[in-house]
Amino acid sequence: MSLIHQGFTLWLTGMSGAGKSTISGALMERFHAARAKVELLDGDIVRTNLSQGLGFNREDRDTNIRRIGFVSELLSRNGIIVVVAAISPYRATREEVRSKISNFVEVHVDCPIEVLAARDVKGLYKKALAGEVGNFTGISDPYEPPVNPDVLVRTDLESLEESVNKVWSVLADRGLITTE
Amino acid sequence: MSLIHQGFTLWLTGMSGAGKSTISGALMERFHAARAKVELLDGDIVRTNLSQGLGFNREDRDTNIRRIGFVSELLSRNGIIVVVAAISPYRATREEVRSKISNFVEVHVDCPIEVLAARDVKGLYKKALAGEVGNFTGISDPYEPPVNPDVLVRTDLESLEESVNKVWSVLADRGLITTE
Repeated sequence: MSLIHQGFTLWLTGMSGAGKSTISGALMERFHAARAKVELLDGDIVRTNLSQGLGFNREDRDTNIRRIGFVSELLSRNGIIVVVAAISPYRATREEVRSKISNFVEVHVDCPIEVLAARDVKGLYKKALAGEVGNFTGISDPYEPPVNPDVLVRTDLESLEESVNKVWSVLADRGLITTE
Repeated sequence: MSLIHQGFTLWLTGMSGAGKSTISGALMERFHAARAKVELLDGDIVRTNLSQGLGFNREDRDTNIRRIGFVSELLSRNGIIVVVAAISPYRATREEVRSKISNFVEVHVDCPIEVLAARDVKGLYKKALAGEVGNFTGISDPYEPPVNPDVLVRTDLESLEESVNKVWSVLADRGLITTE
């Protein structure tokens, strides 16, 4: 399968453990299989390479998100697909980034916090609820969900394949990808 | 004129006022005229968008250069030409960046410090020599020139056109650009 595509930024926002990395990983596999030009900007990778030293207060989070936005713009305006997986909790900052990128697709990777706390894959919710981790999104820090995301995936209700297919369909509907 | 090109990073290093921005501007014009996919990462733009808050001690300079390197790698491995104009005074840090980027072309924009201090376009050398500006490359901070740059331009001896042509020739000789 060969894919014709434009440059765009697929921005996955959602709370820790909601499935951003899993979904972006599955999307990357699909893009690679289709020989698309694609880069993944995962929150952790970016913190290491662009934002070392920044913390998790609002100002530092915003700076981190703006940097990811800056790099996403450089890549996507040159025809590259960028997949971003970052909590990006603040609505205004996401909107600011969106306003600077021509093809911006916001994906809300959503899962109720009760489910996230019950799953607690990394054991972080337990620590956050015990007050051992500060500035924890959804517990001690806000998460402002998108009001009108381009794609809403509900990882507590859908299979990974369903979520990935939803994203893929929106990209195709908008003419950002075309399968030959 | 249409240009076939690979992705590569053209890294202009040199002291303040040596002509990095002038040469990179002229190169950008030539690339744009040839409809190449190209991005300029100018030191000042990058400081605003990726490195706000960093200072000019060695550690902060190195962090800034590594970030430019990270972004250059993302772009150039996707077929984009990246022109970097950054003092990048430390040899080891430039070598570290070079080692991570497949097509890396180092351009030393060279000019004797006496000439730079005499020109002093921005009035910075005067201030640095008077001790009013700290961490000033070439005065109160080291500049480690490339030992074996891919291109050496001498802006005190060459016209802008000559310098740009030198760079262009090296890119063509290496097969990184092909004019049809």
